[in-house]
Amino acid sequence: MPAPALGRIRIVLVETSLAANIGAAARAMLTMGLTRLALVRPKHFPHADATALAAGATHVLERARVVDTLDEALEGSVLSVAMTARSRKFAGRVLPLRDAAARAVAATVGGDVAFVFGTEMSGLSNEQLLRCTHAATIAANPEYGSLNLAAAVQVATWELRMAAVGGDVPEARRFATATHDEIEALYAHALATLRTLGFYDPERPRRLMTRLRRLFSRSGLEHEEVNILRGVLARIDDVCAREPR
Amino acid sequence: MPAPALGRIRIVLVETSLAANIGAAARAMLTMGLTRLALVRPKHFPHADATALAAGATHVLERARVVDTLDEALEGSVLSVAMTARSRKFAGRVLPLRDAAARAVAATVGGDVAFVFGTEMSGLSNEQLLRCTHAATIAANPEYGSLNLAAAVQVATWELRMAAVGGDVPEARRFATATHDEIEALYAHALATLRTLGFYDPERPRRLMTRLRRLFSRSGLEHEEVNILRGVLARIDDVCAREPR
Repeated sequence: MPAPALGRIRIVLVETSLAANIGAAARAMLTMGLTRLALVRPKHFPHADATALAAGATHVLERARVVDTLDEALEGSVLSVAMTARSRKFAGRVLPLRDAAARAVAATVGGDVAFVFGTEMSGLSNEQLLRCTHAATIAANPEYGSLNLAAAVQVATWELRMAAVGGDVPEARRFATATHDEIEALYAHALATLRTLGFYDPERPRRLMTRLRRLFSRSGLEHEEVNILRGVLARIDDVCAREPR
Repeated sequence: MPAPALGRIRIVLVETSLAANIGAAARAMLTMGLTRLALVRPKHFPHADATALAAGATHVLERARVVDTLDEALEGSVLSVAMTARSRKFAGRVLPLRDAAARAVAATVGGDVAFVFGTEMSGLSNEQLLRCTHAATIAANPEYGSLNLAAAVQVATWELRMAAVGGDVPEARRFATATHDEIEALYAHALATLRTLGFYDPERPRRLMTRLRRLFSRSGLEHEEVNILRGVLARIDDVCAREPR
């Protein structure tokens, strides 16, 4: 059940040179649940390289809009983010990607939004950048900011997905949790065994049980684990019973 | 000036099949300022495909440690995160990537940390996953979670960089901001011109100036922009003066 916000986000690739990058970008989009791709004057499209790199995301390519101008790609959008690899005087304030993603997702209540990526070699022109309502950048390593186009789309769409649906992980079905009384019985058993072993002296307890309780409560014991630990304790008890000190 | 935390993060790739993926992962790492790569039993390495895909990040490949076991790759680490594409019963709680990145960066004060990625086809085995202190996942599209290896490394290293140094964008040198008195003079001029145009009636002001003030204060006027707007107003004044109503 995709979040409605994700259905209102367009990814716009402007004058992409390599068809492979279009395919890899489509794959990156779909991994984050985005399917609306617009291509402004792509050099080669459709193309076998695009299809090959799209892996299972070919339907994103098949539904892609190919247009002649950035204005057509942005038609009807209420917010558009020009992605730029560098700060630009003419862009005014360049937003950090995470901020831009949050604003874009918030704006989807009013209509479509677009994230716009320029060419592999030189990005967007200043003229293209100024047709967008915002500019944003991926704050990469300043000494090597060389993300390829699909990698930039991957990071941007990841942030859009995080802003739209969050990063919660469905909890795997856990093994049955131990109950309070099972755990207390375990501690009582452990205490007795440690005493028999001569490791625990009630006269000088040295906070041993406190440490053990802390350790096991951090891990959250399961029913089966309590059984295993009690089995170990019982085995120690047997050995101690056979070899009286 | 890289953040010290980034220098303490190892990326570990286990039994990678395609050398190209190792190269693309190295490039992804370096874009986020990470340089410490460990390869556990790579199928083909070194390899021309790795070098080609690494682009300018070949020194990350050259300095990569190639080891026989995951334990060697994790030696000396104080925290290790197994990346998994699915929730797993044996992993216990699988953390969202953003949480895992925050914990890992926090742990760098105590020593090295590692992010561990399995094979392209099947990820990490349960046995490998259990040798790590934590497990984490990229919460992707549940219907198409197919990030390729380098894309997963790109997203994970992006989150690590964000956790370590944040996503602040260095502000581009802005044009000079307009002063309060320049802006007030502009509004006064605009008011006079709009009156001359018959667009503004002091008897029925309709909150016109309030709306204009709101619009311009949102954009934060620059000195030069005030000059341009006053030039436009002066031109209108000229025309109005020539064509008396």
